[in-house]
Amino acid sequence: MNKKNSESELSNFLIKPDSKVNLKKLQTDYTGKLQKEQSKIELDQLHLRMSKLQYKLHAEKKQALLIVLQAMDAGGKDGTIRDVMHGFNPQGCKVSAFRAPHQEELDHDYLWRIHNEIPSKGEIGIFNRSHYGDVLIVRIHNLVPKNQWSKRYSHINDFEKMLSDEGVKILKFFLHISKNEQKKRLEQRIANPTKHWKIDEADFEERKFWDRYMKAYEEVFEKCSTPWAPWHVVPSDKKWYRNLIVAKIITKTLEDMKLKFPKSKIGKDRIENLKL
Amino acid sequence: MNKKNSESELSNFLIKPDSKVNLKKLQTDYTGKLQKEQSKIELDQLHLRMSKLQYKLHAEKKQALLIVLQAMDAGGKDGTIRDVMHGFNPQGCKVSAFRAPHQEELDHDYLWRIHNEIPSKGEIGIFNRSHYGDVLIVRIHNLVPKNQWSKRYSHINDFEKMLSDEGVKILKFFLHISKNEQKKRLEQRIANPTKHWKIDEADFEERKFWDRYMKAYEEVFEKCSTPWAPWHVVPSDKKWYRNLIVAKIITKTLEDMKLKFPKSKIGKDRIENLKL
Repeated sequence: MNKKNSESELSNFLIKPDSKVNLKKLQTDYTGKLQKEQSKIELDQLHLRMSKLQYKLHAEKKQALLIVLQAMDAGGKDGTIRDVMHGFNPQGCKVSAFRAPHQEELDHDYLWRIHNEIPSKGEIGIFNRSHYGDVLIVRIHNLVPKNQWSKRYSHINDFEKMLSDEGVKILKFFLHISKNEQKKRLEQRIANPTKHWKIDEADFEERKFWDRYMKAYEEVFEKCSTPWAPWHVVPSDKKWYRNLIVAKIITKTLEDMKLKFPKSKIGKDRIENLKL
Repeated sequence: MNKKNSESELSNFLIKPDSKVNLKKLQTDYTGKLQKEQSKIELDQLHLRMSKLQYKLHAEKKQALLIVLQAMDAGGKDGTIRDVMHGFNPQGCKVSAFRAPHQEELDHDYLWRIHNEIPSKGEIGIFNRSHYGDVLIVRIHNLVPKNQWSKRYSHINDFEKMLSDEGVKILKFFLHISKNEQKKRLEQRIANPTKHWKIDEADFEERKFWDRYMKAYEEVFEKCSTPWAPWHVVPSDKKWYRNLIVAKIITKTLEDMKLKFPKSKIGKDRIENLKL
């Protein structure tokens, strides 16, 4: 596939600002014309490019990259981090998993704990869940009243705009799986003793709210996919296809950041004076 | 090489508790009978084992691993993290780089900022420099008086013992290079525009104190290589050999931790009741 085709392929997964979103119409098992074996070769090549781009980001130390991952339970957030972000050096790549907030976090506004985890210049930050939980699970379980959570979409856009103005490039991914695919994955976790630890009662409870989650996600994409912090909805029933698309979008984004190695502060003469 | 030979090879690099250390007698360019090409194949295999062991550590969530890296400038701390720790999933692997402390850190005891970065259960923590700076650079530049830093060896041993008792396995590595190898690496950094950012005036200043650093390191190894937190001095002039030895010691340590997958909390019947 040539570069132009590849880019237009990626734009299929982008939610354009202010567009209407119907998740039922977005295929979860789409894989284009690609074969699994071919995707592995491409992913290996992308890992090499990602690694070199991260090195440059780290050297330049002027910009940061924030990658937000959201999905239903068993949607593949952990797997995406393991299989895709594995291309990054752990030094300079920080993963933050946001679970139910603890007391000190609840004693602050909902963006306080998020702000604390924003990557610094030169770093890549990966959010396993995020501030979007504050308009998703919080909304569905009425953890705060509607007149409070409904104001958050614009807070979030403002917050992300500030970050973007200050040099943080933001990419947001929704890993889109079908309800049936979730069932299969939960079954696999129960059947496989090395995956038991990943499953708990809450997975089954949240599943009951599937349709309400889809509606809440649609509103997130409609209101919070902005030019400075776009949402991508990635077909994720096939893990290999999900990995490839996420890796491609990250690589393209890093390439578009026009990273540059800084100039030397030390002259060549300095070394000549070095004694043994 | 069979397993027994491999283990006795690794013990060559271990500093036995209460032993005298003379760094001049420890070869920096040792590579055994190994060839570079063979080491790459072995390192790839170790990455796979490390990745599986980390998954189990994360699943078990009862123990943590802390890896401390110390070296002279250009000694290979960053390279070791990139080339060896790259085998780990960034989710569950946190790298903490300790530079000159900022004001809030200076307003606390020297272990305060260290304690804050200790990995949690299920995690791997990597320290790029560490609390040992508080008996190294601090000592050499008289940043605190001798009667203060000289008490720190036993604080550090006590602190590390507490961590060990609470489930944190500690491994400490000194990446041992010759003064001549440092000169070569500084020259390469000046010659290579993609490495300029890694070099600064302090590298040249600190080099002048080489012998005093070696003496301070020897005292660290003599006083702080304990059964619960051993120091390894790794010959590091050859990067490929350094990578292999560090990866081998980490892998063996994780294997010795007897990690176990936890039992399931959810019965198989649970899934049968799942509706689509």
